[in-house]
This record gives sequence, structure tokens and C-alpha cells, in this order.
Amino acid sequence: MKNKSIEMQASIRLVNDRLNFIGTVDENDPISIDYIAPLGDNLGYTSLELLLLSLGSCIGTAVLTFLRKMNKSITKCEIHTKGIRKEEHPTGFKNIFVEIELVSDNVTKDDMDKVIYLTEDKYCPVYSMIKGNTNIEISYILNK
Amino acid sequence: MKNKSIEMQASIRLVNDRLNFIGTVDENDPISIDYIAPLGDNLGYTSLELLLLSLGSCIGTAVLTFLRKMNKSITKCEIHTKGIRKEEHPTGFKNIFVEIELVSDNVTKDDMDKVIYLTEDKYCPVYSMIKGNTNIEISYILNK
Repeated sequence: MKNKSIEMQASIRLVNDRLNFIGTVDENDPISIDYIAPLGDNLGYTSLELLLLSLGSCIGTAVLTFLRKMNKSITKCEIHTKGIRKEEHPTGFKNIFVEIELVSDNVTKDDMDKVIYLTEDKYCPVYSMIKGNTNIEISYILNK
Repeated sequence: MKNKSIEMQASIRLVNDRLNFIGTVDENDPISIDYIAPLGDNLGYTSLELLLLSLGSCIGTAVLTFLRKMNKSITKCEIHTKGIRKEEHPTGFKNIFVEIELVSDNVTKDDMDKVIYLTEDKYCPVYSMIKGNTNIEISYILNK
């Protein structure tokens, strides 16, 4: 297996006569990807939803890693990501809202502000690849 | 269901005491997301692999849609995407190589050059959201 800290790969193949692709990496369960009707048939995740999952999980990875380095314990973590598309082509997201829902008995709001700052500033690869092209707002809900 | 041409959403939740998330959108099969060892446990797609799948499928969707508008028939389409990471934080991709493998009895090289131009210029939302932050090279293999 290749060293993923240097290089990553992914492949998709078209599986119908419209826009349904199946994507895979290594031994992971294949992902069905499709576009919304009428161009596609809603048979899977859209490309833009995969981007939201990519960004949300990358932010989550950075935030949890920093909190654990600070010896914080995490009871629950959910991340909800919403993207608002542009009206004109290219119809990517003009705004993405990322909400981190966290339950912990020792994480404070100051901790959250600090780790989110570090994540945005330097430690989230996916964030850094979208930054400047899309407004990204990260918020959190702590112990609710 | 929300109108996905306006807004899209995705959620993930942490499912172990490390970095394994499960992501879902609507009724699609859940996606296991994890980071590579030693931080994570390789229990799923990495965030950056999801980004490659997002970009590859978005480019594929645009390319196939344009070719079909030109009344071209597609026998096979696979898209292989490779990302080379930066050595320093944020360790996103400095280069992404996208190779479109297409089989068709009536698509020419000129057709491919034209639809790839349109895709890069304006019609691939994910491409437009990464453009400028990462070098993206799209190539193709026709009827091989």
C-alpha cells in the first residue's frame, strides 16, 4: 500500500447510461455517486455532498486530535455540515456552515475556540484547499 | 426533501474513541471515514480520499453531460484521481492528477479537449472550489 501521508488515489467507474458512478479506495465499501434529477437519478451521494463529508470529517479529525492532546475526554461528537450553492455556474458552495456538536466533561468554550482557530489556521488540509473560494463558518454546541 | 440545487447537507458522528466517523446523507449507504495510523485506524475513507472522489465525480458528471449534449455515445468511463500532499501543514494536495479513461465510437480528441475546457472553465462546481489552492491537471485516454 502506498504511503498516504504522501499520496492518495481514488477511482470511479460509470455503472449506468446516465451519471451513476461507483467509487472505491482500497478495501472500503464502494460508494454510489450520482447527480440529482433530471440530469442524474439520485442513486447515491452527489459530488458536493462528498465534499461536505470530506470537509466535516477533516475538521473533526483536527479538532479531536487537538482536544485529546490537551488531555480532554470526548463523550460524543457529531458534525453537521450545510452548503449553500451559487445560483450561477459554477454552482459550487458560496457558503458552508459547519456545526460541531460535542459532549465532554472537561472541554471548555475557550478550548473549543482555540482548537477551531488552529484547525482553520493551519491544521485542516481540506479547509486549506477550499479557503478563499468559499466562505466557511465553523460553530459549536457544547454539552447540549 | 430539500432542493439540492440550492442547499446540501451532510452529517457525521464519531463511532469509536479515536477518529472513526460514520457519515450519511439521506437514505444512502453510510460511509466509514477514518484517518491513517497512528492517529487513526484506517477503518474507512480518509477525508482527502473523499475529496478526490468528489472532484473526480464532479468532473465526470460535467464531461459526460457535455458529450451527451453533443450526441456522443459513451461505452465506458472510468476516472482515476491521484493527489500529492504538501510536506508542511496544512498537508492538503499540492497537485491533483485526474485521468479520464473513455471508450466511445464517436468521441474525438477535439471533443475531449472542448468538454474538458468547459469543465475547467465554468461547469464543475468542485473544481471551482479548489481552483487556485491546488494545481489540478486533467488528462484523458480515449479508446484504449
